[in-house]
Amino acid sequence: MSIRTIEWKNNCIRMIDQTKLPQKLEYLNIKDLKALWQAIKLLKVRGAPALGGAAGLGVYLGIKGSRATGFLQFDNELRKVCDYLASSRPTARNLFWGLERMTQVSRANKNKSVSEIKKILFQEAMRIIEEDRVSCRKIGAFGAKLFSDNDSVLTICNTGILATIDYGTALGVIYRAHEEGKRLKIYACETRPLLQGARLTTWELKRKGMDVTLICDNMAAALMQQGKIKKVIAGADRIAANGDTANKIGTSGLAILAKYHKIPFYIAAPVSTFDLKIKNGKEITIEQRCSSEVTDLFFKKPIAPKGVKVFNPAFDVTPNALISAIITDKGVIRQPYLKNICSYLK
Amino acid sequence: MSIRTIEWKNNCIRMIDQTKLPQKLEYLNIKDLKALWQAIKLLKVRGAPALGGAAGLGVYLGIKGSRATGFLQFDNELRKVCDYLASSRPTARNLFWGLERMTQVSRANKNKSVSEIKKILFQEAMRIIEEDRVSCRKIGAFGAKLFSDNDSVLTICNTGILATIDYGTALGVIYRAHEEGKRLKIYACETRPLLQGARLTTWELKRKGMDVTLICDNMAAALMQQGKIKKVIAGADRIAANGDTANKIGTSGLAILAKYHKIPFYIAAPVSTFDLKIKNGKEITIEQRCSSEVTDLFFKKPIAPKGVKVFNPAFDVTPNALISAIITDKGVIRQPYLKNICSYLK
Repeated sequence: MSIRTIEWKNNCIRMIDQTKLPQKLEYLNIKDLKALWQAIKLLKVRGAPALGGAAGLGVYLGIKGSRATGFLQFDNELRKVCDYLASSRPTARNLFWGLERMTQVSRANKNKSVSEIKKILFQEAMRIIEEDRVSCRKIGAFGAKLFSDNDSVLTICNTGILATIDYGTALGVIYRAHEEGKRLKIYACETRPLLQGARLTTWELKRKGMDVTLICDNMAAALMQQGKIKKVIAGADRIAANGDTANKIGTSGLAILAKYHKIPFYIAAPVSTFDLKIKNGKEITIEQRCSSEVTDLFFKKPIAPKGVKVFNPAFDVTPNALISAIITDKGVIRQPYLKNICSYLK
Repeated sequence: MSIRTIEWKNNCIRMIDQTKLPQKLEYLNIKDLKALWQAIKLLKVRGAPALGGAAGLGVYLGIKGSRATGFLQFDNELRKVCDYLASSRPTARNLFWGLERMTQVSRANKNKSVSEIKKILFQEAMRIIEEDRVSCRKIGAFGAKLFSDNDSVLTICNTGILATIDYGTALGVIYRAHEEGKRLKIYACETRPLLQGARLTTWELKRKGMDVTLICDNMAAALMQQGKIKKVIAGADRIAANGDTANKIGTSGLAILAKYHKIPFYIAAPVSTFDLKIKNGKEITIEQRCSSEVTDLFFKKPIAPKGVKVFNPAFDVTPNALISAIITDKGVIRQPYLKNICSYLK
């Protein structure tokens, strides 16, 4: 049975509540903007491409009831909706990309009536959703060529169905290779603190009958040392113009371990994840999340003394030098990234 | 208030139940060998040097009630006790070192009466305990010279009071530097799956009023990239003749990350952790533990789908090339390890 992470249904946003997995596949019906903001903040929906979809649907959800009588008033309301959604999480480029795209489409049609603009915005949100479905499959097709029969692959966080509309970026590549008949053995890092690898990635892969083994994040080096990993692949939340890539905390460490063990390290992401206004990784804002995610969440009892200081960044930046290739929906980009990213994205 | 991890009291082994920390400081009174075996297996007592102490006390516990009438019978009983305790956990050298030492002392006194040998074995167990207290303080004194005021230090697992009798190896170095007035900022890796860093190390350091910050294991690379780590220090469970070091899973990854970021990486351990019969790390037996430690333990609900495959080694091996120095109770050993370890241990 095919599932959709996020979609428009019965006049509201319907999404899988990812905090309930792997125990229950449960859907949320989001009817107002505050509920969407909360769902993003609490990672009920997460994954950069899925957040691009949420941005499109969210803007429509936010303005569909507008009683604005002219464009200026409507544009003002739309800007407030975008600012509010933009304040949910700072790192994933795709969220902002979706909000900017909806704003531009609205402004490009400012001479139309408000009710016409609303219809156009609804179509644009649907287009974002459909484009994600197509782009993930393109990423899969380009990326699968880099994988061989019997490869064992390490991945982090969740970059599959649940991180996109219905297919995946890094896991999309793995799904495509699997569909092509390549037998892959997947190792999934559990991905502390919120365990997207343990909860979501193993759930998806098992659901498809694939060979997946769960590890704690600190076991990756031992696996590599034992020759058990042939490729590493991860997604991206924001990619700078020089290829420096922000992704789930722990990604840059895996890239260093891969380099040391001479294992190819790939990033897979749609072009909507690139941010050419950002020159390099140092300019990327990294979200810091609350300490209780580390000390309490998911646990029966606190795992650390009360009041202990905690460092809890949600993402880290992998320097471009550690990335063997960036697999996109427009093709596979290699070094030198500064030059090649620009030419691919034109 | 000073505490002891393990000691002989009221005719039994009294130990802190480390699975109850950080919630409760609770003691166990171990009156029979099976309870000791379980306590070791379930990590109620853990840490290589503490297991050396447990071996000494455990042998005495196992033979104190012996009704053997001659040495041969006694030696046979003692060998069974040792074999049984040796089957609890395979990696930490100190456990076997303690058992071998007790066996040798018994055999060296084979001409004495069984009741005299029992007394000698009790004294030997007490000597192992006292020697650990002294050797940890020597490690601390040698190692503290390598640390400077305002250093920020990353560590993994627990290598302090709770891993030894009452002081520590890697944390012993940190305690000594602290006692010398050096202000240190400690980052503790939580150390999945059993969270000894989160539960034990932060508890110990907070108890001493020291500056400690908890991180998830996958955050170490981000800290290093941000320049927040000046030194890395870890303990050891077994050190081969060439310096290859088995320690808590995740240690070898930290060593690679430290190398990449040009940060010194130190191992701290007493000479009882060295195993000169083992040429290099490939010969070290690595304990594989059960999958539920990764998928269930400590969590409110399972964090992964039922039946997911899990890779759960308790230790990994850090190649000697990644180790800046090994801090022992006989001094600080540096490259070339194969030559220098032998001369230090003579």
